[in-house]
Amino acid sequence: MTDSVKLIKHEDCDREMLPIRDALDVLGGKWKIMILISLMHGNTRFRQIERSIPKISSKVLAKELKDLEQHQLVKRTVYDEYPVRVEYTSTDYSRSIEGVLTALHAWGSNHRKQIIGK
Amino acid sequence: MTDSVKLIKHEDCDREMLPIRDALDVLGGKWKIMILISLMHGNTRFRQIERSIPKISSKVLAKELKDLEQHQLVKRTVYDEYPVRVEYTSTDYSRSIEGVLTALHAWGSNHRKQIIGK
Repeated sequence: MTDSVKLIKHEDCDREMLPIRDALDVLGGKWKIMILISLMHGNTRFRQIERSIPKISSKVLAKELKDLEQHQLVKRTVYDEYPVRVEYTSTDYSRSIEGVLTALHAWGSNHRKQIIGK
Repeated sequence: MTDSVKLIKHEDCDREMLPIRDALDVLGGKWKIMILISLMHGNTRFRQIERSIPKISSKVLAKELKDLEQHQLVKRTVYDEYPVRVEYTSTDYSRSIEGVLTALHAWGSNHRKQIIGK
């Protein structure tokens, strides 16, 4: 019987993966990191952000911005003007993803060479 | 007219994001990194891998393993025995994702404190 071994491995795996799962839940997927980079580039208005990201839909962008706000990575500010102006900015805390961006950028550049470049 | 400004930004953004997009295409999503970690922990058989990852379905695991194989991160070996034995192992090249794993792990641990820990 190897079930107990598998069970231990399963739990170990789980424990080790929890922070990675957390990180992927928040930053993974197709759009979140791209939205954050767009904001870091100075785009603040909804339409600006939308146009800076190829193929994203308004509905998805709205949902993703809300998620990112809940995770304290994006700040939404409503200016009481006429018409009301809404601005999205990356928070100071969002700079904490720099290490992740750097690692993904380095791996992605290398992987392109690995797969295509030969 | 600010269209030209936006266009430049769009392209800049695109260029900077290309390697990050590539990396997310290959490693992003719910399962790929977890599958790689499971293999790195020594799981080699399909059912072993499946049991080590909570809630993954056989169909999804099969598809993800095939993707990872195409990206040279997983090696599939068929042993001509009776019954035929198939083993999946992580490739030497797959160790290149260590930097990404470390960065995600660090960020995920910290983020859990940031959001829940206060």
